[in-house]
Amino acid sequence: MNINPCDIIRKKRFGEELSEMEIRAFVDGIVDGSFADYQASALLMAICINGMTDRETLALTLAMAKSGDTLNLSDIPGVKADKHSTGGVGDTTSLILVPLVAACGVKMAKMSGRGLGFTGGTLDKLESIPGMSITKDIAGFKQQVKNIGCAIIGQTAELAPADKVLYALRDVTATVDCLPLVVSSILSKKLAAGCDVVVLDVKTGSGAIMDTPEKSRQLAEMMVRIGDLSGKRFSALITDMDQPLGNYIGNALEVEEAIDVLAGRTGGALKNVALTLGAHILRNAGAAPDVQTAIAMLEAKIRSGEGLKTFGDMIEAQGGDRRVVEDTGLLPKAPYKVLLKADKDGYVTKMHTSDIGNAAKLLGAGRERKTDALDLSVGIVMNVRLGDAVKKGDTLAILHVGEKSDKIGAYNLLKRSIVIGDEKPVPKPLIQAVVE
Amino acid sequence: MNINPCDIIRKKRFGEELSEMEIRAFVDGIVDGSFADYQASALLMAICINGMTDRETLALTLAMAKSGDTLNLSDIPGVKADKHSTGGVGDTTSLILVPLVAACGVKMAKMSGRGLGFTGGTLDKLESIPGMSITKDIAGFKQQVKNIGCAIIGQTAELAPADKVLYALRDVTATVDCLPLVVSSILSKKLAAGCDVVVLDVKTGSGAIMDTPEKSRQLAEMMVRIGDLSGKRFSALITDMDQPLGNYIGNALEVEEAIDVLAGRTGGALKNVALTLGAHILRNAGAAPDVQTAIAMLEAKIRSGEGLKTFGDMIEAQGGDRRVVEDTGLLPKAPYKVLLKADKDGYVTKMHTSDIGNAAKLLGAGRERKTDALDLSVGIVMNVRLGDAVKKGDTLAILHVGEKSDKIGAYNLLKRSIVIGDEKPVPKPLIQAVVE
Repeated sequence: MNINPCDIIRKKRFGEELSEMEIRAFVDGIVDGSFADYQASALLMAICINGMTDRETLALTLAMAKSGDTLNLSDIPGVKADKHSTGGVGDTTSLILVPLVAACGVKMAKMSGRGLGFTGGTLDKLESIPGMSITKDIAGFKQQVKNIGCAIIGQTAELAPADKVLYALRDVTATVDCLPLVVSSILSKKLAAGCDVVVLDVKTGSGAIMDTPEKSRQLAEMMVRIGDLSGKRFSALITDMDQPLGNYIGNALEVEEAIDVLAGRTGGALKNVALTLGAHILRNAGAAPDVQTAIAMLEAKIRSGEGLKTFGDMIEAQGGDRRVVEDTGLLPKAPYKVLLKADKDGYVTKMHTSDIGNAAKLLGAGRERKTDALDLSVGIVMNVRLGDAVKKGDTLAILHVGEKSDKIGAYNLLKRSIVIGDEKPVPKPLIQAVVE
Repeated sequence: MNINPCDIIRKKRFGEELSEMEIRAFVDGIVDGSFADYQASALLMAICINGMTDRETLALTLAMAKSGDTLNLSDIPGVKADKHSTGGVGDTTSLILVPLVAACGVKMAKMSGRGLGFTGGTLDKLESIPGMSITKDIAGFKQQVKNIGCAIIGQTAELAPADKVLYALRDVTATVDCLPLVVSSILSKKLAAGCDVVVLDVKTGSGAIMDTPEKSRQLAEMMVRIGDLSGKRFSALITDMDQPLGNYIGNALEVEEAIDVLAGRTGGALKNVALTLGAHILRNAGAAPDVQTAIAMLEAKIRSGEGLKTFGDMIEAQGGDRRVVEDTGLLPKAPYKVLLKADKDGYVTKMHTSDIGNAAKLLGAGRERKTDALDLSVGIVMNVRLGDAVKKGDTLAILHVGEKSDKIGAYNLLKRSIVIGDEKPVPKPLIQAVVE
């Protein structure tokens, strides 16, 4: 295969459809260096402006999925499932649905990257559990999934290395928010990770990558369409991120809330989304006839305590102290608390969710750069949700502050992010659409 | 000025107009490295697809013109003129018009790059004259223009270095043929070279960069529009390149034909275009009231022998043997000649001009890579022009072959490039349009 990069770039410049062979030449070329970065960025820009057909997006996704290691999970009996979220604030659904789904008999084999964000990723949250390790070789990872039904570890295999190269380029050439590129980036890693069923959580609203319902729907539809074309079973939920999903924002704090949900002590939006995502996995895996039945199955695993037990099993299998599922007091705690109080009567009319996330980051819960160290104990506990009536002096949120936190910056940003007004806002549905 | 490259790229990605400040940040950035090559190529692609307004193209041209040295010719009295051709085959107009225009009192100060092409550039042609040097410092260059009215030397000053960077990138990212980029590339170098009047020769047809009349006209119009906005006086001619302009193709061969024209021994298309370009310079410089009068002035300089004498003066001033203007036998000669004969009766219905140029390159007259050595003696002399009636066995062209020439390759390519058919073709006008 000897295709001149210029010929590929020229075709897309003039809006033509690239062939599968040309797309493979591009993806192979960025990994082996025969496609220079300045050529790749020119092609990325042409893709951003002139778009890609589904056939091209599928070819790009598959080529990227094959650009490095691919996990073969076929020696684990049964259906293997995975879940992906486009990322939000207070978004701990994985820690809840992974053990619950596993308790229902569908294997959850999650290999996660770390990434940047408002708070740490799932891996960072897990590391707040004393002793917990997210490092395991592939044999050990598979063995754990076989034994207890689930595992969440850091990437050991080099999954979709082409995505790393492309993402780094997109980040510095204003080509991040382009649907075919977003879709191929997410799906390629999921396909390389080897699961049969994938459920996607596409966030929409003030704390989401896709800020309008229309863009979120386009992304969800394209992911499911391309995902299904790849031969796997995909569903996507579009869920509200106009306010933090859970009330706890941080690393240890989010583990605590996940445990509270698994123990049946708390409910609300976080539980609702986690169970709906989990139910789609069960339904798509053939373990339940429909989503309603599947939700009931997951609720039953909360009531029976099997979900919490499976979480404990997973923690133990990964070297952690399983007693945290019974006693969240064992999680790291921030030394100081600062209360944010309402300065007038009214309703919570708006939350600038991404700024609430940034406030948590200022406290030390999230990374600006890959090398930044996290304080796993810090974060924010929200006391109010959109539409709540508040009186002057009511506590809106509690900042959990560490020694190195930017306390004043976080406080001021959080204060600006919660808007109190006179009119009670009309609530948006939590789950805005299901795409399958 | 601290503008993030991503913000500039994003604006153009979404089709917005860039400000002068943003364009300057881009051009300065590619020279000082603050704009990475992969960012520049993404922006170039966005420009190719979404275009540029005249205001943007002017700003880009001016920023590129100022990116390196700029020549100040104001201490040379009178109007200083320059000429640019988009490049063709058998295109030796500079060697004819430069001495003729100078003989009419308008200064021609040409500083040329070398470039790649079918044959060598003007500099290579001049170097076929024994002893001739194209190297001179700026003071010497100016002094020569003052003394004898003209000079053609290689670039000593670093004119428009941003263009070098951009051109190298465009060449490998399929972004060469984009009007605002072509225009700014050509004009920036002309503006940096400091002349007051510039005449452009935009070739159209089978041997030209712009292969359709429409594209050639767009290029010519944009160059004149942007050139005039820059405060200089520009005109452009659109001239036919559906066949080689002169009958001689090569380096020494083209010098020979130029001398033949200056000596009044030959005429035809080459003389016609050279004199029309020269006439526009005289008219734009205020040395003639109109183009017709100016052409008569140039004709008079041929008849009086002053054009040939000025060419001799220029050769002498640059260390060459001025006797060549009286005796072209002093130019290097190829050791062998090969005749290409017609294999049937008919008319010359079509010439693949760029392949005729490539045949000359195979003989050694042009460069594929910057480091290739030329054989200045080799080339092709055409015996026929489009529409000529030929009989089987007539000589169509004579290949002037050197020791290292690819004789068979050149012969076969040349043979395929001259099409003999039954219908006499309708001739196209030599000068298809004047844009001013």
